[in-house]
Order: sequence, then structure tokens, then C-alpha cells
Amino acid sequence: MKHLLITWLIAYTTTLSMAQGARARDLGIPFDGTPGYFNAITDVPGIEVGYTTLISGEGELKVGKGPVRTGVTVILPKGKTAGFYPAAWFSLNGDGEMTGLPYLEDYGMGYGPVGITNTNSVGTVRDAIGAWCFRQFSTGDFFDFSFGLPIVGETWDGGLNDINGYHVKPEHVWEALDKAAAGPVAEGNVGGGTGMWLYGFKGGSGTASRRFAIDSTTSYTLGVFVQANFGIRKELTIAGVPMGKEITELQPIQNTGRKKDGSIIVVIATDAPLLPGQLKQVAKRATHGIARTGSISHNGSGDIFLALSTASPEYAADSPFETWRVLPKWQLDAVYKATVEATEEAIINAMIAARDLDGINGNKFFAIPHDRIRELLRKYNRGG
Amino acid sequence: MKHLLITWLIAYTTTLSMAQGARARDLGIPFDGTPGYFNAITDVPGIEVGYTTLISGEGELKVGKGPVRTGVTVILPKGKTAGFYPAAWFSLNGDGEMTGLPYLEDYGMGYGPVGITNTNSVGTVRDAIGAWCFRQFSTGDFFDFSFGLPIVGETWDGGLNDINGYHVKPEHVWEALDKAAAGPVAEGNVGGGTGMWLYGFKGGSGTASRRFAIDSTTSYTLGVFVQANFGIRKELTIAGVPMGKEITELQPIQNTGRKKDGSIIVVIATDAPLLPGQLKQVAKRATHGIARTGSISHNGSGDIFLALSTASPEYAADSPFETWRVLPKWQLDAVYKATVEATEEAIINAMIAARDLDGINGNKFFAIPHDRIRELLRKYNRGG
Amino acid sequence: MKHLLITWLIAYTTTLSMAQGARARDLGIPFDGTPGYFNAITDVPGIEVGYTTLISGEGELKVGKGPVRTGVTVILPKGKTAGFYPAAWFSLNGDGEMTGLPYLEDYGMGYGPVGITNTNSVGTVRDAIGAWCFRQFSTGDFFDFSFGLPIVGETWDGGLNDINGYHVKPEHVWEALDKAAAGPVAEGNVGGGTGMWLYGFKGGSGTASRRFAIDSTTSYTLGVFVQANFGIRKELTIAGVPMGKEITELQPIQNTGRKKDGSIIVVIATDAPLLPGQLKQVAKRATHGIARTGSISHNGSGDIFLALSTASPEYAADSPFETWRVLPKWQLDAVYKATVEATEEAIINAMIAARDLDGINGNKFFAIPHDRIRELLRKYNRGG
Amino acid sequence: MKHLLITWLIAYTTTLSMAQGARARDLGIPFDGTPGYFNAITDVPGIEVGYTTLISGEGELKVGKGPVRTGVTVILPKGKTAGFYPAAWFSLNGDGEMTGLPYLEDYGMGYGPVGITNTNSVGTVRDAIGAWCFRQFSTGDFFDFSFGLPIVGETWDGGLNDINGYHVKPEHVWEALDKAAAGPVAEGNVGGGTGMWLYGFKGGSGTASRRFAIDSTTSYTLGVFVQANFGIRKELTIAGVPMGKEITELQPIQNTGRKKDGSIIVVIATDAPLLPGQLKQVAKRATHGIARTGSISHNGSGDIFLALSTASPEYAADSPFETWRVLPKWQLDAVYKATVEATEEAIINAMIAARDLDGINGNKFFAIPHDRIRELLRKYNRGG
Repeated sequence: MKHLLITWLIAYTTTLSMAQGARARDLGIPFDGTPGYFNAITDVPGIEVGYTTLISGEGELKVGKGPVRTGVTVILPKGKTAGFYPAAWFSLNGDGEMTGLPYLEDYGMGYGPVGITNTNSVGTVRDAIGAWCFRQFSTGDFFDFSFGLPIVGETWDGGLNDINGYHVKPEHVWEALDKAAAGPVAEGNVGGGTGMWLYGFKGGSGTASRRFAIDSTTSYTLGVFVQANFGIRKELTIAGVPMGKEITELQPIQNTGRKKDGSIIVVIATDAPLLPGQLKQVAKRATHGIARTGSISHNGSGDIFLALSTASPEYAADSPFETWRVLPKWQLDAVYKATVEATEEAIINAMIAARDLDGINGNKFFAIPHDRIRELLRKYNRGG
Repeated sequence: MKHLLITWLIAYTTTLSMAQGARARDLGIPFDGTPGYFNAITDVPGIEVGYTTLISGEGELKVGKGPVRTGVTVILPKGKTAGFYPAAWFSLNGDGEMTGLPYLEDYGMGYGPVGITNTNSVGTVRDAIGAWCFRQFSTGDFFDFSFGLPIVGETWDGGLNDINGYHVKPEHVWEALDKAAAGPVAEGNVGGGTGMWLYGFKGGSGTASRRFAIDSTTSYTLGVFVQANFGIRKELTIAGVPMGKEITELQPIQNTGRKKDGSIIVVIATDAPLLPGQLKQVAKRATHGIARTGSISHNGSGDIFLALSTASPEYAADSPFETWRVLPKWQLDAVYKATVEATEEAIINAMIAARDLDGINGNKFFAIPHDRIRELLRKYNRGG
Repeated sequence: MKHLLITWLIAYTTTLSMAQGARARDLGIPFDGTPGYFNAITDVPGIEVGYTTLISGEGELKVGKGPVRTGVTVILPKGKTAGFYPAAWFSLNGDGEMTGLPYLEDYGMGYGPVGITNTNSVGTVRDAIGAWCFRQFSTGDFFDFSFGLPIVGETWDGGLNDINGYHVKPEHVWEALDKAAAGPVAEGNVGGGTGMWLYGFKGGSGTASRRFAIDSTTSYTLGVFVQANFGIRKELTIAGVPMGKEITELQPIQNTGRKKDGSIIVVIATDAPLLPGQLKQVAKRATHGIARTGSISHNGSGDIFLALSTASPEYAADSPFETWRVLPKWQLDAVYKATVEATEEAIINAMIAARDLDGINGNKFFAIPHDRIRELLRKYNRGG
Repeated sequence: MKHLLITWLIAYTTTLSMAQGARARDLGIPFDGTPGYFNAITDVPGIEVGYTTLISGEGELKVGKGPVRTGVTVILPKGKTAGFYPAAWFSLNGDGEMTGLPYLEDYGMGYGPVGITNTNSVGTVRDAIGAWCFRQFSTGDFFDFSFGLPIVGETWDGGLNDINGYHVKPEHVWEALDKAAAGPVAEGNVGGGTGMWLYGFKGGSGTASRRFAIDSTTSYTLGVFVQANFGIRKELTIAGVPMGKEITELQPIQNTGRKKDGSIIVVIATDAPLLPGQLKQVAKRATHGIARTGSISHNGSGDIFLALSTASPEYAADSPFETWRVLPKWQLDAVYKATVEATEEAIINAMIAARDLDGINGNKFFAIPHDRIRELLRKYNRGG
């Protein structure tokens, strides 16, 4: 059965070359701040991203058979090594899911890879990440906690995908984990973002980064990854331009029923050393980045954010203490600014990279037309 | 494979007759308040509880093979019908997991059955509950959200159970759901509580209830269910008596490694109509019940509580509103008192009902000796 | 001493006529949505606003003597009648103060007038509001709680005002309360907003409102009041136009020291019936309104929001219940949209209405030049 | 006027000698753990406590005249020096007030003295603490924030005190601050606790401490201070003994109206170095201490806790970082245990030290009879 399924599905890890596709900056959209080398969450040293994208079948929805338009995304804050990292969450609107929250809330640390997938596959991805961690990191101690309490978020792709067919299997999670890598990150219809939409266009996975200096010798990188699946067309704003009111064409084909408002998972990562409480304030700033793209954050949306630092506290064998060497409060504005800017750009990147995709019952979302963006930037004197 | 597994496992729904075992009150332990008919969470009208208990194998731990000492518990607030119910959570100590939290936190409603299992099986149980809800409640609408955002908690049974073997399968969850029933509720080594310990004795599943009056014509029932797996022997207090300092015999056999502090999931349910914000205050009171049994709530414990009301808001076809007819703030003391008392008693019930159980590598937890409890109650003039 | 002080201060209740000053819409700034009659928080039936503005002295700061550039603002959700109202708070950035939070957080109700003043006068305003409530509402019962737990917020006006001189006295609070009225609301350098700045221009008090329909027969009003004292010049964005990068002239005169990042208190009020938990989600949306004006919400800012509904639950003499007839979750988008839009407009209104003001040591903030706004709106094809 | 008031009031700083009065341990009540030298919050190095107690008048309540049974308590975590300290809050039941919460919640630091007083005087105490800090710590910088965001809690003494007469004046706060000292701490009817009750007996101020070791060379002290004003007689439990059910005599004389449930402010301080997030977990453990004394934490109670560490992060002139050398999570049980034990003992100490006190309209609370405690400890074989 498993072999049949895998044959039937087109399961692949997306080619990571981004040479094929434009990104938001290529269209002349003005953004503040200085991105890192890849303008991706992987600009933060040590971070790896992996995808498994599942696209197969056409036409009428048959639950359990397809069509399949989904996948899984994994972000490894410490690569393929074990270890806790400071982290915090914030829910802008809680009509969604993220696992691992009690530990984040009370003890401010994450452990192991972070997953993002469709709503109904959160459990599969959660347990599969735990199992992978156990295999990777187990010490052989009988009382071994290397399973961790995995952090997994989701957005709902049931507009295109046979979401009640549970097509994401543990093997897909492990494949994404094993193939996770640093370097450039594919965007658009890939991984957990495969079947997502955004302001009435096709959406999905997006990323961006910022570099910022604390003083003349100290600088850091902050990267943001989004699985973006939210917003109403007329709200869409890019660089202050009311794009959504202008681009009224290319409305989604929805042959069936009502539409959920959608959701966004935002993962913010930085090598700047921060306390968990500081990371919670960072996480809140994803809101500003979202707001800059026009949304009011609708009631049916699961807008849930994770902020983490790759700079873990230090331990010494002869000391009963852990040591945190972190930025003081008065240095946080640079981190907040990077968060707002990179979140905004990651969302627009997801939209720019996405391609037309149809799914169940012929439902279809269209890519935002790049030429219209350039034209409207010019109309509103914002570049292009 | 599935058939082999089921043959190999001794999977059964626990016989629900409680005639065989004593409960805390049978030993003369004094408790305040008036319990319901079954002194169980099922005294709240409409609530059903189901278990699947998995016990198989002996001796050395072989990951993936056993020994198996685990299971799954399901609590159906609205029985086998669809529907949202007001709910809230509180984390006393977040070294544990509960899914479904963003929706609870921001919108204060739960949907569908609640699950409790071992730490590593939370994802399996979460997705399986969602799948069961979809099968049960789907309207056929293409954009169907009857999967819900299932609420699943856990405690860690890796002291006795091959927890990294993932022996809880979706079929076990569906079995527990299908067999869930009102009426008496088995306690001790059953369901998700199968492999748990408590103050250095064998622990597991426990329940209790209270009836309380608001005025001469209005009364309600509040029931508590616990999966109890926490505490250090010397802390154990029953009815104010320092039992744990007195009963120093029957220490656990732990042939391997360190012990996790353990955890407790508390589910509080009532037919009293309450707002989500009120239910959060109710959830906090589980702390008092735990504190009465002596624990300080250790750092490694996942002490996470869910409070829910079976009285959902009402809708009328010709109205754009929902209507909540709830208890005002000044009536809440009766609810708080019932919560504290029933939580305390449910924990003690779990301990009294549990039986000796050995597991991986010959590790073993012993049942608390009932005669010693009676003897110590007499010594401290507290009954018995 | 008291008489001398009052003679020395120019204490006055601001003339409420707004005929003198332009508002944001008068400059052609495009906003979404439909404002109420006054485009003010007082469009919500029953709400009254009162100010006492304290401006006196010139030149060098002499602590305790002046110059004085401060005041107090009061918002009476239920006018001059007693009663609880549903309310919730959200802190976007907690470098500030709001009293009354534990009750808001746990029981979701406010009582009596809300105050806003300078940082150091929060206590004076808090106790004075309580005393006024006691005088107004006391039942004569010896155990009388009509003092309430007053909600008072603040922003820091120490850039212009002798803030350590404590020039706000209880009498000023009572004056504002007694003179509070429905109808048009003065903006800019009035009340608690007297000495505040905004994106490097003069800021202060601002308000706006929105009307929204739930269905063909049901519509509501939502009003926002801000005391705005935040932001860095280059961040300022109006209607998507990067005003702050363009208007580099008229920088503040700061003869002394560093500048605090500033803060914003946002009070959102609506006659739409909402649960406290829903109001917390509403409060979060003030963030989007702020983000639309360009800020990233700096670390030194106290960005604290209060959302309240004037529709209190109902009680019947013969019933032990309280009844909440509220909007269901799926109707909240209209409330969220109104909140975002009215917050954005209230902030811009505060800036448009403010006038040049100098204070201690010759420090000075300038009003944003209206003609430059018009010119830049045209440049970016956004009206004007 | 001020002089008259002070003449009329009997304002004094309570004699700090505790030689006169018994404490809980003197009655043979068994407690776990090892207290510090004074068994007081002042066992934590650097902490100072100051009181002003206001007792004057007899008989009928005349608002503004008396009788007066109130006061103010100040706790100086860093003595009479400036500086931030890590801190966190927790609200067990939010029918009360604590100022300074947004900064605590978002940035986890307190600054300056903590105050506790009656409900209606919170504002006076808050501003007076700020003014004192400004006088003590101002750097002369024009943009000076040495006022801070003072943390002030309260409980309601209107059963005995003319609470609407506002008898606590800034001078009383400054007096308490100036006279604050390390060393032994008076308990019972002193400071903010003067007019408070406890489980139907006279309550007030209480304190206790614990010493605990982390390893062979590292040990710390944790102290708790409570202003205790809560509980119903029959709930009272001491060392597991149902004292409240046994001691039915000496019921309060309440000549007027209903009684508020009361409240408790708990201040937990330690020299153990902890992160703000860890301190929040510490603050939650005050609940266990309260629960051990029998209460269910009633709806009308303001049960609000502050936990702080005197070990502030460190800064170096040549570094952009702050350094936190703190206890790791797995060492926190010792801190939690000390918190639970010292909270329990501080509450009982408040009750043991309190003396009979009458107030407005002849209302009166009686001290718990010490001989009855001894007798009941013997009856239940718990010492005495």
C-alpha cells in the first residue's frame, strides 16, 4: 500500500535553484533594510530548510485518492544536531494550530526541527519529527527524551488539496528532514505551502532576511520563513500601493462552497542572542509585516508566529549555572525592524514565486501577474 | 502487519465494572462536597469516556517491539455528536504537550473529543480524532472543517513502556471513540494512564465529581478526569496526612537511569453554563487540588489543564447573534470549590485503583497499600 | 498652595469646537470604511470624553514649577452612570503603564471612566477617578465597591513638560469628568495628549470611528481614541506614502538629552455586543492600524490597548444567570476592519490637529505641514 | 491641613522587635524546609522592608474622618539603591490591582521599591514611590526615567477602615521608604496589612524564608512576604489539620453588610539568579502555598503574586551585551519548594502575629487563639 501510494504520488524534494523565478526585489518593489546573501532564513548560520512537495491527480475530489496538492516543510534551527534553542510564540489570531506551545510558553525553549504542513497532517508531522530526532539524537539512555516536544504549524489547503485524504506520510517528513540544507530556499508552490493561496492569488512558501548591526563590530542576521495562505484580494498592499483594488482580474476559480479565511505561519530566526521573553516581543512584530501587506487578520485565520534564536545559553562542566549573553532591551529595535521588514518581504516573495495551480474539482488559484505589479508601482511612483 | 500487531498486542477496552476495586472513599478518606452518582466525569450529562489499553510483552526493552504499557483515553464532551463547546486551558507547568491551544486561547471553544495518551503518540491521536470527526460529522461540503483542531494531552510512560515504539495506532483511537460510553469509568492502569506512576506508587487514570447548587432550583455537576503521573514519594499528602513520609516501603524498581518528574493532565467538565474566560479561572483551580495531594509541581512536569462546559451558546435562525446564558462572577465559588475537591479526589482515586505493574527492563511500580492508608488515617485522627 | 498653583497654571477644558482645525480627511487622505457622524469615539452611543489641558510657563525646566505641558483625558464608556462593561487589553509593547489589568485579564470587565495622562500622574488620576465614582455611585452600603479598579493609561510627555512636577491634581481629573460630553471631540494638543509627539512632529489626542453592518437590519459603530506619542520620522507612512522619508524638515528642537521612543494608548469602543475574549482579539488589531502609519513599535514604547463594548450583559431579577447576546465569531471581521481603519485614522488625526508647541528648556515639536501632505499625496497618486 | 491630619492620625513605623510575639513555629506547627536567620524576606541579602501603620479613631464610620485602620508596606529589593531587577507576576484571581504589569509581562524587570496598601490608595502609593525614586536616583539628565513604573499591590481593608477617606498620604509612603531596613520584620496588624483579615480571624502582614542548596558550594535564600486578607473560616487548614472546622468560636463582628472575599498579595524574592520567565513559574507556586492553608481562591479575591530575583544581569563597559548567569531549568525544583513552603508559613505567620482589632462601626476581627492551635495539633497528632 505504501509503495503504491508513493508511486501514485509525485513526491519530490523541490529543486532548490531559484534561478528560474523572479523574487519581489527583481520586480523593483522597494523594501527597507539590507538582506543577507540568499535573502532567506538560511542566511542565519546553521539553519537548514527542507521540503517534500506532493502534487498528483486531477479533477474531482475523491477523499483518500486526491487530487493531492500538499506537502511538508521543515526548518532545522540547529541543522542536523541536537540541542535546545531559545524560542517564543505569539498568536495574532488563533484559528489554527501549533504544537509544542506549553513548553515554549513556560520555559522558552524549542528542541529539534520545526514543521509546517496542512491542517490535518499536523499530528503525522509532529510524531515523525519526534521519531527522527530520537533516531538521530538518542543517547541510548533508557529514559531518553530526545523525541522532544516538536513544534509543528499548519495552514489549510483544502481548497485545492484532498486534505481529508492524509497524503502526508512519515516518510515524507523524514525525506524533507534528510534533504534539508542551507543555501537558497525555493518559494511558492513547495513543501507545506504547495496548495496555499494569498490575497486571492496563489500563495505558499516565502522567505527573506535582514542583516543588522549592533555596533561597529557586532552584526547579526534575521531570517523569516512564511507559509502564507491568507487575505482578501482588495486588501492587498505592496509597498503602500493598493494592488488588490487595482488587480481585479484573475480571481480564483472556486467551483465549490465557501472559502476559509486562510492563515499564516511565520518562523523568525536570528543568530542574535536573545532571551525567550525578548523573542516573544520579536514574534509580535510579525504582525506589522503582515499589516504592511494589507490584511486585517480575519477571524478564521490561524496567524501564529514562532521566533527563535540560534544562540543557545552556555554551560560549563564545573558550574551549576547556564549563561546567557544577550542583547539588552535598548538594542532590540534593530531586531524588531528586521522582523517587520523580512516578514513583509517573505510574504510578497511567496506570492511572486507562486505559479498557477489547480486542484480538487477544478478549483484554481492564479499567480499574481508580475507585469501588473511593475505597472502599478510606476502608477503610484513607487519604482517598478 | 496491522493484524500481526493487533494479535501481538493485548488490546482491549477495559471492563468498566468498578465493583472489583476500592475507591478513595471506600477507604474512609474524608473529602468535602457531594459527588455525583458515579463520582466520575460522566456524571456530567452527555459526557462519554472511552479507553484502549495496550499491555503486552515482558522484559528487556526492544524499541518497536515492547514491552508495551500504554493506551489512549478519549473524553467526548458532547458524546458522539458534533458541536463546539466553551473551553479554556491553563498550564501550571509546561513541560508537556496539549494540542489545540491557539483556538482555545483566542476563541475559547473546543470541538470534538479530547484525547490523552503517551507523549510520543500525541500526533497519532490528534489526527485520528480529526479523521473520526470527519467521518462522523462531515456535511459533504467541499470546504468541510469537521476535522476540527483536536485537543490532545499526554503524560510520559517511558518508565514502563516502549514509548519510542509508537504502539498506539489510529485504530486504537477509533476503538476507544466507538466504545466510549456514559456511566461508570474504570480507573488506574487503563487507557492513556496505563503506564503512569504517582508519588512513587503506580498511578494512571482517575476521576471524581461534585454536585453543587446555585439556588433552590438550579444545580449542576462538575466532573474531573486526570491522567496522573507526577510527584515525589515524600510529598504525598492525603486528607492532610503526610502519607508519603510514612510509607517508605514499596519504592519503585528502576533498573535504568533517571526518572522524569512526571506530569498530570486534568480535564474539568461541567454542565454549568460558563464563558470561556470563566473556564480559564476554573482551570487554574486544578492547582489547588494537586497542591492538596502534596506536590510542588516539579520543573519537569507537564501539568496542563482543560476546563470545559457542555452548555454551548445558542443560535436562532432569524438572529445574527449567539446567546450565552451563564453564571455571573459572584456564583463561581461553587464551581471553584467543586473543581478543587474533585481534582484532589480524582488523583487519589487514580492511585487507589492502580495495581502493581512492571514494564521495560523489569522496572516496576507498586500500588499504594490500602491498609497502610487506613492505618495512617487513624494515626492522624482523620478517619479510616 | 493649591490656589496659587491653580492661578499659576492655565487650566482649562478645551473648547470642543473642531471648526477651527482640519482633520485628515480634509486633506484628501484616502481612508477605507464609513465613519460615524463626528468621526469620533463619541459616535458610539453613550460615550463621553472630557479633557483638562494644563499649559503654563516658558523656558528653563524647574522641577515642580514648570513649564507645564500636560493634562488628563477621561473616556466614560457609560457616561455618568455606574456599571460594568465588557473589556479586554493587549500590550503590543509593555514599556508603559495601564492600571486595572488583573480584573480585565481574569474577568473581562471594566468599571467607570478610563483615564489617560502622563506617566508620572497615573496614580493621581487612578485614585481621583475612583473617588469620583464613589461620590457618584455609592449606594451607602458600608461595604461599597463603587470605587472600582480604575483603568488608567499614560504616555511620557517629559520632552516638553515638567513631568516630575506632578501638575495634574485630583481637581483636574474631576473637572474633566464633570465636563465630559458626547459630541465632537477636540484633537491634538489637548488633555493627556497635550505634550506628546508623533513621528518627530507634534502629536497628542486623536479619534475616529467606523460604522459597519452585520446584516440588513443590524449595524454598529466602533470608535477609537488614541493618545499618540511614538515613532521615528523616517518611518511615517500615510496612505502608503513614505511621508517621513520625504518631509525631513521641521525636526524637533531638543536642547536636552536623549529621547524616549514614546508610546501610544489606544482605546477602542463599540456598541457591538462582544464577549471579553472577543474584545481581546479586537484589541490586537490596533497593531495593524499603527503598522499602517509606519512604526515597528520600538522597545521603549508603551503600546497598550483597551477594547470595550458598551453592550453589557443583562440580568433579570428572577434568574441566577447573566445573559450575553453577542456577535458570533464569523461576524467579527467587520469589527476587526473597523478597528484597523479607525486606529490608523485616529493617529493621523492626532497629528493633523496638533499645533507647534514648545516646552521645557525651549524644546519644541512642530506640527506636520498640511500642504506637504497634500503635495506628497499627489506625488504618489494617492489623492490630495 | 497636612499637619492636622498627621496629628490626628497615629502614624508610626512599627517597632520591629518581634520578641513580643509568637510566630507559627513557636506554636509547634511543623513546616518543611530550612528558614533563614530571621525567617523573613529580609533574609535575602539587600532587601529592606518598611511600614507605616495608621490607626486612629473609634466607632461610627464618617468618610474622610475615620476610623482609620490602614497603612502602607514597602519592599526594597535593592535597598535604597537604583537598579532594575528580574521580576514576573502571576494572577491566580484577578479581582484586585497591581500596577507595573505591562513592563513585567513584556520585559520582565522591576525597578525601585514595591508597595502594598489598601485598594483605594494604590495610586497615591504608586506616584509617591516614583517621586521618591526620582529624588533618590535622578541623574540630572533632562530625560530622566528614574521615576520608573512602580509596582504596587493592594488588598481591601474596608471592613475595618475608612477606605474611602484616603488616609494614606505621600508622606506616609516616604516615611516607610526612609525607615525601611533589613533585619527582623514585624507581622500582623502593621503597614498595608493593618486592617486585613484571614479565614475569619485577624490577618495582615506575614513573612517567612527558606534556604536551599544547589550544590555543595552554592546555596541561596528565598523569602516571601504576604499581605493576607482572604479565606472562609471553615476552609482554614494548618499543617493538614482542619483548624477552621474545629475553631468555630471568635467569629468576626460585622455590624454592616456583606463581606468581600478578600485577597492576598504575595511577594517572593530570592538571591538565586533567575530569568524573568523562570520567575513567572516561581510566582505560580504561591498558589500551592495558599492551597495548603485551605482556600479555593474565591472569585472576589485579588490573589496576585510578584516574584523577583535580586541577581540582576551584568553589563560591561566594552560589551554590547548583558550577561545572565542563571540556574538552569533542572535546578528549579529547589526554588519552587522554597516558594511553596515559605508562602504557606508566611500566611500562617500573619495570622499568628495579628492581634484583635476593631474598626468602623464596631466591626471587629479576632486573633486566632494560639492555645487552640496547639490543642488541635495534638488532637491530629501533628505536634503542638
